[in-house]
Amino acid sequence: MSNIGFVGLGIMGGPMCRNLLKSGHKLVVYDVVPALVERVAGYGASPGDSARGVAERSEIVITMLPDGPEVEQAVLGPAGVLEGARPGSTIVDMSSISPLVAQKVGAACQAKGVRFLDAPVSGGEPKAVDGTLAIMVGGDEAVFNEMAPVLRTMGSSVTLTGPVGAGNVTKLANQIIVACNIAAMGEALVLATRAGLDPNVVFNAIKGGLAGSTVLNAKAPMVIGRNFKPGFRIRLHQKDLRNALLAAESMKVGLPLTSTVQQMLMALMNQGKGDLDHSAIVNFIEQMAGIEVKSPGDLP
Amino acid sequence: MSNIGFVGLGIMGGPMCRNLLKSGHKLVVYDVVPALVERVAGYGASPGDSARGVAERSEIVITMLPDGPEVEQAVLGPAGVLEGARPGSTIVDMSSISPLVAQKVGAACQAKGVRFLDAPVSGGEPKAVDGTLAIMVGGDEAVFNEMAPVLRTMGSSVTLTGPVGAGNVTKLANQIIVACNIAAMGEALVLATRAGLDPNVVFNAIKGGLAGSTVLNAKAPMVIGRNFKPGFRIRLHQKDLRNALLAAESMKVGLPLTSTVQQMLMALMNQGKGDLDHSAIVNFIEQMAGIEVKSPGDLP
Repeated sequence: MSNIGFVGLGIMGGPMCRNLLKSGHKLVVYDVVPALVERVAGYGASPGDSARGVAERSEIVITMLPDGPEVEQAVLGPAGVLEGARPGSTIVDMSSISPLVAQKVGAACQAKGVRFLDAPVSGGEPKAVDGTLAIMVGGDEAVFNEMAPVLRTMGSSVTLTGPVGAGNVTKLANQIIVACNIAAMGEALVLATRAGLDPNVVFNAIKGGLAGSTVLNAKAPMVIGRNFKPGFRIRLHQKDLRNALLAAESMKVGLPLTSTVQQMLMALMNQGKGDLDHSAIVNFIEQMAGIEVKSPGDLP
Repeated sequence: MSNIGFVGLGIMGGPMCRNLLKSGHKLVVYDVVPALVERVAGYGASPGDSARGVAERSEIVITMLPDGPEVEQAVLGPAGVLEGARPGSTIVDMSSISPLVAQKVGAACQAKGVRFLDAPVSGGEPKAVDGTLAIMVGGDEAVFNEMAPVLRTMGSSVTLTGPVGAGNVTKLANQIIVACNIAAMGEALVLATRAGLDPNVVFNAIKGGLAGSTVLNAKAPMVIGRNFKPGFRIRLHQKDLRNALLAAESMKVGLPLTSTVQQMLMALMNQGKGDLDHSAIVNFIEQMAGIEVKSPGDLP
């Protein structure tokens, strides 16, 4: 069992630490929020005093942070992981960030002889708790093979998808499809509802054919039942699509649907709906159609 | 067994006639193309001399035509079905058309005491041959219940979704989701491929999660294998999305993703790609990214 450092102890990081501890790993943990450090210390982890302090006491450091700027700060910034990391140690960033930032952080690690993987996850809090996340990894194959057993304590599917950055590219590909599939479902359901049809009848008539999807099965009942409790939040999906568009731009790739849906998400955030489930994308289509959107009763 | 008239004996109508004949129905058939009449006569149907002539000899007339204008012509036009149909008989239009046209034709039938259902199908030629189409029906419940046994000789799923026009609204909802899901997959795969990833690895990494869909499973292998043999043709899907946008406009509903994908399909038609499978939507995204699109080897 390895000495593992863990930086970022929020909704995802907390339960991921718990699963690492259950598997017998020794954990040193840090978060800028002291209460989160205390909570994970309560699971049996040793509290660290900084990201650097965590790295000094670990062979492997895992980071799980909101977005690229936080990862840059925690890894490359003052009192960051890289100041404390020894050559030959490994940093695994499991945040969902821009692949460009992942590559920048990876290059800085390499320059110090520190190995780096980007390994974003999919599945959200429930699968973080269950240890059944899907983990998409970018980096060197030998490093991946060494780290895979550690990752498997947190995820049921652990896939190497290419060099550093590829994990986040795969995650963004996933997020593009999910967001656009939700918006497409929204357009279909608004059209049918406005035409006077029962959306449940439409859902049942089409779900078994080529229109069928995991999004349709998971989200159509939420939309029809006006339940927008997250799940996955509007503001996080907006962040992911923004990262996808920035990465696409750097490669001169145009993403017309993705950019449209990113703007829908931004508009919903401007209405104070950033913490609703991403299925609330349908609200944007409804507003366009002049349909009064009932205020969701079960905001988190 | 009923005396059934059938107008429109193409790729879909031909095998649908065959299944009606197999079930023991007596069939009178007509198409503007004499060779198609001859072929279906070879299955055991009686050839008619016009749409009106078919209606004069039938209690039920089924129409299966390319789009709304052809249905208006065949049902409401000179020597059309309605000229020959007796009060109390039933017309079932199984074409995929604008719900507005379906309602117009339905109203003209009602004025003559003729009953009308719109009953578009999904599943394409293979399911027309197998008699396993999904049939989405709009119309009066009593008429639906009477016609359902006839429809079940052609389809494995037969669903009443609302009043006349609702069948086509449901079909359009289906087509919106399918087209947008294909385009979303295209954006995700182009981004990943341009970033240097193996699209097959990405496909396998994400297909089990929230990004999973029938479209992803059916079409990603076609895109990755550069096989754009239809399947369902670009030009037919363009027609469906155009009908969706016209119906949406009549209800003051905006469909931003649908309109974008409809324009992608139109652009591909302008390049002579109208007879490729709709998975070739990805070609549009590739062209935007300056990726040279290999000419598909297996055009029909």
